[in-house]
Amino acid sequence: MPKQVDHAGRIRTIASAAIQAIGEVGLDALRLRDVAEAGAMTTGAVTHYFDGKDAVLEAALAEVVRRILEGQAALDAEVERGDPVAAIAAFLPDTEERRRDWKVWFAFWARAAADERLRALHKSYYADVIGRLDATLARHIPPRRRAGLADAIVAAVDGVSIRAALEPEDWPPERQRRTLALLLAPLFAPQPKTRRPMRKTR
Amino acid sequence: MPKQVDHAGRIRTIASAAIQAIGEVGLDALRLRDVAEAGAMTTGAVTHYFDGKDAVLEAALAEVVRRILEGQAALDAEVERGDPVAAIAAFLPDTEERRRDWKVWFAFWARAAADERLRALHKSYYADVIGRLDATLARHIPPRRRAGLADAIVAAVDGVSIRAALEPEDWPPERQRRTLALLLAPLFAPQPKTRRPMRKTR
Repeated sequence: MPKQVDHAGRIRTIASAAIQAIGEVGLDALRLRDVAEAGAMTTGAVTHYFDGKDAVLEAALAEVVRRILEGQAALDAEVERGDPVAAIAAFLPDTEERRRDWKVWFAFWARAAADERLRALHKSYYADVIGRLDATLARHIPPRRRAGLADAIVAAVDGVSIRAALEPEDWPPERQRRTLALLLAPLFAPQPKTRRPMRKTR
Repeated sequence: MPKQVDHAGRIRTIASAAIQAIGEVGLDALRLRDVAEAGAMTTGAVTHYFDGKDAVLEAALAEVVRRILEGQAALDAEVERGDPVAAIAAFLPDTEERRRDWKVWFAFWARAAADERLRALHKSYYADVIGRLDATLARHIPPRRRAGLADAIVAAVDGVSIRAALEPEDWPPERQRRTLALLLAPLFAPQPKTRRPMRKTR
């Protein structure tokens, strides 16, 4: 019987190796050989699935997005528990692995800036993440406080993560979370009661 | 008399041309010829000052940072006028020119992710921007409300700008400002008075 190959699994393994290699050498200097080495595979195994650097980058980003969406699945329970900012902080680059994931975004943004097709792909990934986030928020936050909230959350996470991923020595997890909380906590804080006039005018 | 050459001016002209060229073709595909074309110069004029793509990127980023610091000079008066969020919104990519500036950051982040020296340069630029921002805030915001504020402001601007620069069709200036205001307005809002007990206990 011929050996069964789990193609989807193989592609994810290569994508994970690509994330590691991009984090180490950057996308510009990346060779498919670096990806193979990071995954302890033959270069042939990589080229069998990917015909070049762009294809590898796209697979790496797809894997990063898959991890984000997987992380979002836990968001609901955390928000329910009453600490939405802590739940959102789970996406910050506070481990070496997540810092690598963020470096894939940097590589992708740089290429997408001048590439219409990659921009469309980027937009669709953000739409996925924000759509799922919005669905979670809808279960916990009243509509009048939800307008633009998902956009704001994603912007806060992106903004903090850029600094943290590029200056890891100066941005320990605590500083990342503190900055995120400064931006997001007010958006989840209980609203002060609307002040009512003591008596009707007229 | 030999023709006087304004070297600093020439370098800034090339840097501006580089910003335009990076925005159009991306850093990966960039040739020094593209920079020359964007600036209506000879390729020789570019290579006279810059020995390669990395040097051009660094000059482009230096020019982008110069523009930011210049913009920050106006911040003080705007904050004084009582609308700090509107003042900060001036850094968002709501024009074609500023979108191009942001694409230089994307290119730089991608390279800095795997390059220690560029990371140090990035850090020093952020330190400049945040140092100046902090000095402005110090004139208007009491110390107890200023902790981490500059970090939060820069993160909010970065986060909104990433989306806006990559999805310009969906992020008109109004949406950019609204998202920024959602994140930052609470940080500048007048604090509710601390509730004092009606009478002393004990």
